[in-house]
Amino acid sequence: MTNAPENSAEDSLIARYFKPLATDPGAFGLVDDAAVLSSSGDDIVVTTDAVIEGVHYLATDPPDTIARKALRVNLSDLAAKGAVPAGFVLTLALRSKEDAWLGPFADALGEDAKTFACPLLGGDTVSTPGPQMISITAFGRVPRGRMVGRTGARPGDRILVTGTIGDAALGLDVLTGGAAAAALASDPAAREALVSRYRIPQPRNVLARAVRDHASAAMDVSDGLAGDLTKLCAASGVSASVDVANVPLSAAAAGLIVRNAVCVETLLAGGDDYEVLCTVPPAQSDALIAAGRAAGVAVTAIGMIVAGSARPRFLDGQGQELALKRLSYSHF
Amino acid sequence: MTNAPENSAEDSLIARYFKPLATDPGAFGLVDDAAVLSSSGDDIVVTTDAVIEGVHYLATDPPDTIARKALRVNLSDLAAKGAVPAGFVLTLALRSKEDAWLGPFADALGEDAKTFACPLLGGDTVSTPGPQMISITAFGRVPRGRMVGRTGARPGDRILVTGTIGDAALGLDVLTGGAAAAALASDPAAREALVSRYRIPQPRNVLARAVRDHASAAMDVSDGLAGDLTKLCAASGVSASVDVANVPLSAAAAGLIVRNAVCVETLLAGGDDYEVLCTVPPAQSDALIAAGRAAGVAVTAIGMIVAGSARPRFLDGQGQELALKRLSYSHF
Repeated sequence: MTNAPENSAEDSLIARYFKPLATDPGAFGLVDDAAVLSSSGDDIVVTTDAVIEGVHYLATDPPDTIARKALRVNLSDLAAKGAVPAGFVLTLALRSKEDAWLGPFADALGEDAKTFACPLLGGDTVSTPGPQMISITAFGRVPRGRMVGRTGARPGDRILVTGTIGDAALGLDVLTGGAAAAALASDPAAREALVSRYRIPQPRNVLARAVRDHASAAMDVSDGLAGDLTKLCAASGVSASVDVANVPLSAAAAGLIVRNAVCVETLLAGGDDYEVLCTVPPAQSDALIAAGRAAGVAVTAIGMIVAGSARPRFLDGQGQELALKRLSYSHF
Repeated sequence: MTNAPENSAEDSLIARYFKPLATDPGAFGLVDDAAVLSSSGDDIVVTTDAVIEGVHYLATDPPDTIARKALRVNLSDLAAKGAVPAGFVLTLALRSKEDAWLGPFADALGEDAKTFACPLLGGDTVSTPGPQMISITAFGRVPRGRMVGRTGARPGDRILVTGTIGDAALGLDVLTGGAAAAALASDPAAREALVSRYRIPQPRNVLARAVRDHASAAMDVSDGLAGDLTKLCAASGVSASVDVANVPLSAAAAGLIVRNAVCVETLLAGGDDYEVLCTVPPAQSDALIAAGRAAGVAVTAIGMIVAGSARPRFLDGQGQELALKRLSYSHF
């Protein structure tokens, strides 16, 4: 692509915006249709997540945050699987070649690729008459057979979660003029904090190694804590009991709950948290919490795995089970 | 997903239509967010290609052919890289959960996955308000360092291409009522043959090993022979001379040329061929042609790599250079 007349606007777009990101030797400077993940003796963990304008992000979201979100939702999966990022491929469906959008999009994507040591390996850029879509497939490496799955949770395991839960759902609520927007009308800092959590996930890759060392099962929270824990339990053939009072909340989220501006269900079933949810044998729970502390990431015990096939129970401060009408975000 | 109440329609969709395809152990029966490509000592070749309704296929195309095309355009990349298919992940952006569409789509995808020994490893299913989109990232294995790139073409190498060129572009022309449709009004068999080439590519995976053994550079022809050869030459820092009379044409395409119903540029610059274009040192050219014969795939020498940085020249039967106004399909 460098030593030739560009023979299409698509090539020109790729050369201009994305070639600078393709620093890994396996990307061949994007002159090939294919990339190589070189053999290292490790297993390759593969994850794929797409974001669509109007569904996963708003048309009014800035291009730089869209880029970060598209990559980070995949990095979050790798973190939960205990994998070290190895690279990603990008499919970009655009309505047109919009320089004002592509410039900051590619710059932010490149910054995140560098920050998380996850280089762009290749991709496909296509035109669409519809909403923009960004589909990323990301790769990570784990020692052979060591990917952390969803099926290993056992009765007695502690349930741990990183960071705070529900902020992103509240951030979307702020952006779309919901209850949180009204309740925070005079608190721009809280509004901004929540919006930032919606637009820019903070994947916990710094804890991947600790998750691999200690967790019996793990996944990232993307569709809502309640629904995602239900999936993990189903995959492991177990049930769970969660103390809702222990679910970690940000100051902004806690304030809204105290004022009755939003209900806890909104937080437990809201999507886009991109925190790690994992189960850990009791003897190792403190070690993972300590690893989090060392890395500057809160890791909080919120409940316990129990035997059975019932749906996980979410208990309030009085030990009463909450009746959740909704467990998670669903596309259909 | 099996031993649990389904907690979303998305899970139900995945369980119903795609879990039966996830036969590889690395797919974990689609209960996980991530898949594993187990370490084998081989390099992993990664390729990604998306198809969008109204751009890469027509809204009226049958769902089974859309599925096959979405997978095969990726298999074609693997074939050209000399890689053996190892699996794929799928991102499916749907307007709604349409059983009448999803059933035949998933069935055909599963058939092709089996035929080409390329199992579904995972994916993401999302809703979109816009056109449907299918993005596939496919994986193949090659011995360490043996992926066939685009940069190895050397002056003197023969230029070889599999199958026939231009049929898919003519098939699209038939479907959209272009010149080919008019010229073939009384020849339904020819129309059907061309349409089939547009809807269902025939990737040349059976020749992957021979391409790896003999080719100095290779790529698949997806955007048009002229433009794709130009890209390959640019990547290798060489030029080329092509005898257009030697470019292999189907009977239907040749007939349309003879009758002046379409011009040769339509064939050379039309997209969607999904044939292998490769360069081969002269001493190995016969071996690759013989491998094709043994596999039932025509392999035809169409020209030669020459020194220089000029665009490849396309010469007619009199040795005159054709002035191509267009080299390939461009999205922007």
